[in-house]
Amino acid sequence: MSDNKEFQPVTESTAPKTRQVNPYGPNPADYLSNVENFQLIDSTLREGEQFANAFFDTEKKIEIAKALDAFGVDYIELTSPVASEQSRRDCEAICKLGLKSKILTHIRCHMDDAKVAVETGVDGVDVVIGTSKFLRQYSHGKDMNYIAKSAVEVIEFVKSKGIEIRFSSEDSFRSDLVDLLNIYKTVSQIGVNRVGIADTVGCANPRQVYELIRTLKSVVSCDIECHFHNDTGCAIPNAYCALEAGARLIDTCVLGIGERNGIVPLGGLMARMIVAAPEYVKSKYKLHKLRDLEVLVAEAVEVNIPFNNPITGFSAFTHKAGIHAKAILANPSTYEILNPHDFGMKRYIHFANRLTGWNAIKTRVDQLNLNLTDQQCKDVTQKIKKLGDIRQLTVDDVDSIIKDFHAEVSTPQLQPKRDNDDIQDEISEEPATKKSHQ
Amino acid sequence: MSDNKEFQPVTESTAPKTRQVNPYGPNPADYLSNVENFQLIDSTLREGEQFANAFFDTEKKIEIAKALDAFGVDYIELTSPVASEQSRRDCEAICKLGLKSKILTHIRCHMDDAKVAVETGVDGVDVVIGTSKFLRQYSHGKDMNYIAKSAVEVIEFVKSKGIEIRFSSEDSFRSDLVDLLNIYKTVSQIGVNRVGIADTVGCANPRQVYELIRTLKSVVSCDIECHFHNDTGCAIPNAYCALEAGARLIDTCVLGIGERNGIVPLGGLMARMIVAAPEYVKSKYKLHKLRDLEVLVAEAVEVNIPFNNPITGFSAFTHKAGIHAKAILANPSTYEILNPHDFGMKRYIHFANRLTGWNAIKTRVDQLNLNLTDQQCKDVTQKIKKLGDIRQLTVDDVDSIIKDFHAEVSTPQLQPKRDNDDIQDEISEEPATKKSHQ
Repeated sequence: MSDNKEFQPVTESTAPKTRQVNPYGPNPADYLSNVENFQLIDSTLREGEQFANAFFDTEKKIEIAKALDAFGVDYIELTSPVASEQSRRDCEAICKLGLKSKILTHIRCHMDDAKVAVETGVDGVDVVIGTSKFLRQYSHGKDMNYIAKSAVEVIEFVKSKGIEIRFSSEDSFRSDLVDLLNIYKTVSQIGVNRVGIADTVGCANPRQVYELIRTLKSVVSCDIECHFHNDTGCAIPNAYCALEAGARLIDTCVLGIGERNGIVPLGGLMARMIVAAPEYVKSKYKLHKLRDLEVLVAEAVEVNIPFNNPITGFSAFTHKAGIHAKAILANPSTYEILNPHDFGMKRYIHFANRLTGWNAIKTRVDQLNLNLTDQQCKDVTQKIKKLGDIRQLTVDDVDSIIKDFHAEVSTPQLQPKRDNDDIQDEISEEPATKKSHQ
Repeated sequence: MSDNKEFQPVTESTAPKTRQVNPYGPNPADYLSNVENFQLIDSTLREGEQFANAFFDTEKKIEIAKALDAFGVDYIELTSPVASEQSRRDCEAICKLGLKSKILTHIRCHMDDAKVAVETGVDGVDVVIGTSKFLRQYSHGKDMNYIAKSAVEVIEFVKSKGIEIRFSSEDSFRSDLVDLLNIYKTVSQIGVNRVGIADTVGCANPRQVYELIRTLKSVVSCDIECHFHNDTGCAIPNAYCALEAGARLIDTCVLGIGERNGIVPLGGLMARMIVAAPEYVKSKYKLHKLRDLEVLVAEAVEVNIPFNNPITGFSAFTHKAGIHAKAILANPSTYEILNPHDFGMKRYIHFANRLTGWNAIKTRVDQLNLNLTDQQCKDVTQKIKKLGDIRQLTVDDVDSIIKDFHAEVSTPQLQPKRDNDDIQDEISEEPATKKSHQ
């Protein structure tokens, strides 16, 4: 302890009790933040159709659209009506359902596509064109002047039909910034409803997103929509940082299904947003319907819900380590930022393992309606940990150990058998209740 | 087009050809960035043991430790030797393997634990104590003075044994900032090797992380380690932003397994980091071993690799939409920020579906060694899309359609059968090669 004189006593600092700010809420410095005022464009029926396993027939599309509407998404985006004949008919059918969610379809920035789209009955059309040098060279081969001219033509046509119109670049984070700002300024001036930023390859990182959206926000007067792929695991926080910077709408898919490993998952984004804007999220979206919505889509595309999915992953509310279980039992907020009840889920204390602690075991003892002192709970916990060292335990294993231990401590031990003695009298101290069952 | 005069011609801006900066690399403004100089502490054998399904026997722990070492993680963190008798023996056994990765164990900030830990043969000890008001109230019940005193005692004891020592708070993002900085300054001054920031409940967002690490960096002179839970889907980008701000070490688990839905997944972080620091990542970590490592752990804890896992999810390199397939065939970078070959993986163009395009089909035609003109490829694509509208397609379905079409266009059509005519001569134009097989 030779360095002891360098130790500085630490004094508790106490925050004033009157401060009621949500520490996970919008940062007051982000004066353009839409964290508490965002909208969802669910693209399970467009981007999601591009998922490797996806094939939705008309009936399934309608079922998914109704479930998204019941959850409360603001918009539902559908595959382009020019993708195939059935895609067009499905688009028309979903428009006729009379859902509360607005219906969009997603087309190339081309008059041929726009003319078909406006006839389907959609509330809005999302147009997209690649602006990165990669896409200009290897996809459509057009220059920025051509892109701007096509955009203006399509936007004015769709607007003339009284239909909402969004213009998005593709692969925005690998596009030239000046090119991007130029075209967004142009389309904003002619009255586009939304401009879209798309991280088509999933390369963007959160602070990069924040900077681009903040810059774009100073150039356009319309809403900003964002579309983030998840190749490098950043889709959800990129969406969050975009909202912080002033974007208003986020594209999601149920379970994030889409091209490659997909985009922002609806459930994961809800996990992020309920922490930042609990009242807004809980009042606007039917969070209890999330699990059924995910099961519906998972079954339709034949995947399992990932074990580590936010909210609905099988262990998302399971607490295991002894030290965690102790605190959770005292106050769930200790180790939970999400309340499982907000999503119609339950928390679970995993006590059948060698990392268990006596607080978790004591709770189990209580659940079993048994009476053990704290010291006895500690003793039986040691027995459980010992077996847990040898093999994986089940709840039944733990319950058996607890019940055996309880029987042992509440029943007087048999004395070592004395020669020629009758031991019957020596177990007479058994509780009356137990006797009455014999 | 009445607003046409408002349209501003867009001119191409061309970046100087000499600029060779990686646009996804470290931001030059982050002068403390460790994006190109980070280290990994893999905690699959500690945090991962807290995953609901985890039970690793000695043999499995050793197998995982060897695989982590072969992958090249800098540190391997093990469950506390006081968690159970077998945990202590396993810790000793892994220390004796002579791995290149340094071995750590993770204990409570308590001399009883520290005394056991230093006897196991580990290279370093990670101590942790809850500093949030939640944990101080509901877990250990100690105040900040007590925490600081215990920390100093444990740190000096472990250092006296010539063993690396890390001090971490728990639930750092819900701890009082002044309390945190005070205790980190204290432990830094007495020569702790690393301080740890832990988002124990998964509440932090990326810009918040950046700010806290930047602030902490100005207070301590030692390395900063970060531990991020994934409850709100932000673990990977939080780790990235921490490195941007000057943190040096990130805790990972294979597939992210851990309490609840886990922490930063090793593979997902590799996806993020290879984009930002390709040379560093490729020279330091054996990325080709990632898939086998994930399969090993997935089987051990009886989970499936999530369908949407970065890099190893089954569709992570599958391209489906016609517009994507076209560009990918011309240049994979168009729709890929990750190169599958870096991870020993392959890309796959999904052409057997109604969203397919003629470029993808033309490639398939070439693969089948058939000769069709571009127009013929477009025609057969329409046939494929038509069947894809009715049901899910397999590769065999598409191949059959292509082969039938090819046979049709390269074989003269049979004329409607004329009465009493022998048609045998009319198909005599069949290729000689085919005839020779008859």
